[in-house]
Amino acid sequence: VTSRLPQVGTTIFTVMSALATQCGAVNLGQGFPDFDGDPRLMQAVKDALDAGHNQYPPMTGIPALREAIAAKVEALYGHRYDPATEVTVTAGATQAIITAVLALVHPGDEVIVLDPCYDSYEPSIVLAGATPVHVPLTAGTFRPDFAAITAAITPKTRAILVNTPHNPTGTVWTAAEQQQLADLLRPTEILLLSDEVYEHMVYDGAAHLSVASHPELAARSVLISSFGKTYHVTGWKVGFVAAPAPLMAEFRKVHQFNVFTVNTPMQHALAAYMADPAPYLELGAFYQRKRDLFRAGLAGTGLRLLPCEGTYFQSVDYSGLAPEIASLGEAAFCEWLTREVGVAAIPLSAFYPDGRDQQIARLCFAKRDETLQMALERLRARL
Amino acid sequence: VTSRLPQVGTTIFTVMSALATQCGAVNLGQGFPDFDGDPRLMQAVKDALDAGHNQYPPMTGIPALREAIAAKVEALYGHRYDPATEVTVTAGATQAIITAVLALVHPGDEVIVLDPCYDSYEPSIVLAGATPVHVPLTAGTFRPDFAAITAAITPKTRAILVNTPHNPTGTVWTAAEQQQLADLLRPTEILLLSDEVYEHMVYDGAAHLSVASHPELAARSVLISSFGKTYHVTGWKVGFVAAPAPLMAEFRKVHQFNVFTVNTPMQHALAAYMADPAPYLELGAFYQRKRDLFRAGLAGTGLRLLPCEGTYFQSVDYSGLAPEIASLGEAAFCEWLTREVGVAAIPLSAFYPDGRDQQIARLCFAKRDETLQMALERLRARL
Ligand SMILES: CSCCC(=O)C(=O)O
Ligand SMILES: CSCCC(=O)C(=O)O
Repeated sequence: VTSRLPQVGTTIFTVMSALATQCGAVNLGQGFPDFDGDPRLMQAVKDALDAGHNQYPPMTGIPALREAIAAKVEALYGHRYDPATEVTVTAGATQAIITAVLALVHPGDEVIVLDPCYDSYEPSIVLAGATPVHVPLTAGTFRPDFAAITAAITPKTRAILVNTPHNPTGTVWTAAEQQQLADLLRPTEILLLSDEVYEHMVYDGAAHLSVASHPELAARSVLISSFGKTYHVTGWKVGFVAAPAPLMAEFRKVHQFNVFTVNTPMQHALAAYMADPAPYLELGAFYQRKRDLFRAGLAGTGLRLLPCEGTYFQSVDYSGLAPEIASLGEAAFCEWLTREVGVAAIPLSAFYPDGRDQQIARLCFAKRDETLQMALERLRARL
Repeated sequence: VTSRLPQVGTTIFTVMSALATQCGAVNLGQGFPDFDGDPRLMQAVKDALDAGHNQYPPMTGIPALREAIAAKVEALYGHRYDPATEVTVTAGATQAIITAVLALVHPGDEVIVLDPCYDSYEPSIVLAGATPVHVPLTAGTFRPDFAAITAAITPKTRAILVNTPHNPTGTVWTAAEQQQLADLLRPTEILLLSDEVYEHMVYDGAAHLSVASHPELAARSVLISSFGKTYHVTGWKVGFVAAPAPLMAEFRKVHQFNVFTVNTPMQHALAAYMADPAPYLELGAFYQRKRDLFRAGLAGTGLRLLPCEGTYFQSVDYSGLAPEIASLGEAAFCEWLTREVGVAAIPLSAFYPDGRDQQIARLCFAKRDETLQMALERLRARL
């Protein structure tokens, strides 16, 4: 068989998790917590099962969950999406992204992505028959480079895919950056696909800037988020999309023929659990403490810490380590770290189409304190 | 926005379920049971939640479930798929179908579908940039027309998508038909995408003929099935795909960037529950009794019953009803039946790209006996 995605192998997250398991390494690679979701949320699933919520839900998601999503987005970001026509429940954010791309991007179009970026963006665009146009974030700071974005726009540019808080670099867009994007897009018809799955993990008093907090952007945007990250249940595979009705109508045309709809008991459980805003309001403080613990523990390892304003990822520059280690490419360094030090990490190069090396690795601190301590002990002992 | 799927509206199943709810009709439209899955299966989900199975499972599905699928397929159909490289858990059969098409069909290719067919096939092919080639089943009998299939093959034919037991017509392929397909495909490199979601609902002593029961076909096939139909949990959205390793490698490349993976607690529950073959072995007898009850009850309504060899659908020809009713198109007839008689049905025309009218409606008998009785009373009172 000739491949539709000849460049693509198995996603790095799967590869590194398998290697971590094989080596008995502490897995700080793939982004998922090693602790469980709230027992109240688990009970809500059991209640849904007992209530017999096991058949097809509505294609767009159960009304109570769509309403809860719309209410949360409005309370936090000020924009009211109509749950009937502007909110759809998805099988996670990844499914939301490919569905938005397949629904809104035509063969021959161009889609701008900012590198480094999540590894599903490029194949989603390729499968739509469109061309990914890669614009690097500013070297060193990983902030958006608006001159470079402007230069990349052509008459074929159909959409730009952005992500804040940013995986893998942990940057969070500022209001000035969001406004620059709005100014830049104003004279165009370019759609904004906004991956906001880390929306509740923002630190040091900063605020997440959703497209829903900017009416002009909201009018041309597809907002994508996830319950898996927010509620510590990455395996549930439930996310959502919010967008103006004309965009959502196209999204739903594809969604209904992709997954059709999303797990019913989990939808009922999430709808009930969302009534309490505390879990997501407290998430920033919860992870900021872990970030601080992890960063403090890394001091003296010779790893240079990149800023971490949001997400559950801390990236580190290993160019200051002993020369035989510092000279390793990122993939080789992460393999060495996993096999020899017993701590799995993700090479930043996995987020670039050209796989470029910058001597940076990504570590996930969404772990129990004991797990972080064990990883830190191993790192301090060997680096 | 310009649509990628300009011909597509909301799927008929969603439209008719919404109308049924609005009218208080007995919903025999969309295919789902109105009774619950086995309490033991529900308990297995609770056990999985209690065991903390809430984070990302492996991309391809948890090993225990892939092993259980491979063991079941081998026991029933004789072909052993390697669970490591030839089985993948999907978010339902619909997601499996579009993923197979996106992974294996290239822009410009042709894919043969046999009409009437499930409404997701055509948009899946269109989104892959390929051309659906529609070959009607034999008029009247709805059996595969191999001369017509042969005539439709061109050098561009990449795949043929078949479905047995067949939704919506309830036909089940015979061994002779399966062999004719194998003979016809032998000199070609055409892939077979085999939608077998109703594999356990076959009646009157007939056997389901999976591609896994035919080694020559298995070598070029993607077998697609679903747990939702088999275990009365259509809302769980868990299915699976089995295929030779080279095809599966391509499938997984797209799968990992579509949904990435599938709900963890449900996977653990299904793996545990599959240890007992009784539920699927008894399913044919369970539904045959409902089919017989339903068919007997329809006698004397003036509706002509089409054969029903499998699936949970009974199609009826209404051309013998009173002229003002018999003259309605299928969509209008189903709307009239829903609004005026209080029984929702699906027009067969929804399964044809040209929406042709044959005065046939599809009724789902996967319902509690009381529900079927209520529908039958309403039908007998008005027809
Ligand atoms: C879908 S697996 C990867 C999880 C994740 O978002 C990450 O590690 O970046
Ligand atoms: C995915 S909703 C439709 C369910 C079904 O398979 C049918 O009714 O044909």
